[in-house]
Amino acid sequence: MSENDRHLREIALRRDELLKGHFLHVVRDEVRLPSGRTATREFVLHPGAVMIVAQLDDGRIVMERQYRHPMGEVMLELPAGKLDAGEGSLACARRELREETGYEASEWAFAGQLAPTIAYSNERIDIWFARGLHPGERQLDEGEFLDVLSLSPDELLACCRDGRIQDAKTLVGALWLQNVLSGHWTLAWSDGVESGVAG
Amino acid sequence: MSENDRHLREIALRRDELLKGHFLHVVRDEVRLPSGRTATREFVLHPGAVMIVAQLDDGRIVMERQYRHPMGEVMLELPAGKLDAGEGSLACARRELREETGYEASEWAFAGQLAPTIAYSNERIDIWFARGLHPGERQLDEGEFLDVLSLSPDELLACCRDGRIQDAKTLVGALWLQNVLSGHWTLAWSDGVESGVAG
Repeated sequence: MSENDRHLREIALRRDELLKGHFLHVVRDEVRLPSGRTATREFVLHPGAVMIVAQLDDGRIVMERQYRHPMGEVMLELPAGKLDAGEGSLACARRELREETGYEASEWAFAGQLAPTIAYSNERIDIWFARGLHPGERQLDEGEFLDVLSLSPDELLACCRDGRIQDAKTLVGALWLQNVLSGHWTLAWSDGVESGVAG
Repeated sequence: MSENDRHLREIALRRDELLKGHFLHVVRDEVRLPSGRTATREFVLHPGAVMIVAQLDDGRIVMERQYRHPMGEVMLELPAGKLDAGEGSLACARRELREETGYEASEWAFAGQLAPTIAYSNERIDIWFARGLHPGERQLDEGEFLDVLSLSPDELLACCRDGRIQDAKTLVGALWLQNVLSGHWTLAWSDGVESGVAG
């Protein structure tokens, strides 16, 4: 953050644990505002996640349909998942793609990051592209139920337009896909073997 | 949800209140999985929000820079905010744009919805476009500190490409902006006076 941002910056003063649930970890921080007054900020602590834009040899994109209880709906999404403790980003992307869809990819490219909920979570999602896909057996977690399908890029973008895709990470994946396919945004592909590829 | 989704659907059985903070409201639902077993789902209850893609007469887009404590950074974002109790979506968009940036818009168009965090929040954000902007005095909430600036659409997309924009809602706004400007996606503009415009 630049010196010019002193009029915006908040300084953390203390942290209280609010909730350690089965799944969610929530804290409340006391912060000093730029005005000198104090305020509280409550948010979810998250380990980080990955999302995969996996393109089949015929150009179609691997998608999932999964019931999302908070939304009360089956949602159309790109494959994604949370980092395990100590897991690297690319290792997580390989694992989630294989476990959820069965696919293994021979080439990977790191695209960028997105932050889904900057007001109340510290989650960041790394965006990976994958190609050179080979099908295999998926290995869903206990209690995980999802369908795997594929959409052409045009179909995927039509779903973003008409509301069939509302999941933010997937909409951001569509922004990347559109600009990569048009040639406006370029990716650095790698076989993903070297550990440094995740940056 | 179609009959075909029975193999994905979860049935809510009961709800426990986990946290009623100053800002966050978290519940834990017990659900019946498609397999018949039960599981718990913890998530944030959210009133919903709006985001505004506001285009100045010279084509530039109104943006904000705001320190986001969970991220520990100043983030570059489109104007956005939460619905007040009983507030309509367009009324909220008008209010947030005016309070945070000072601008009032003579024309509005509803674009679509995004769900930022489908795994652990029920938040939905309505995406609005605004044009015919007239500057005025902004009225920030107590404890709210943010800078207002503008970016050309090309600058905004360059920021999405190179990581200066990581906020998911803003990246989704860029997807909409790019496709509206290219003519691939169309909007239905209105003066926003009739209450039914929010759909």
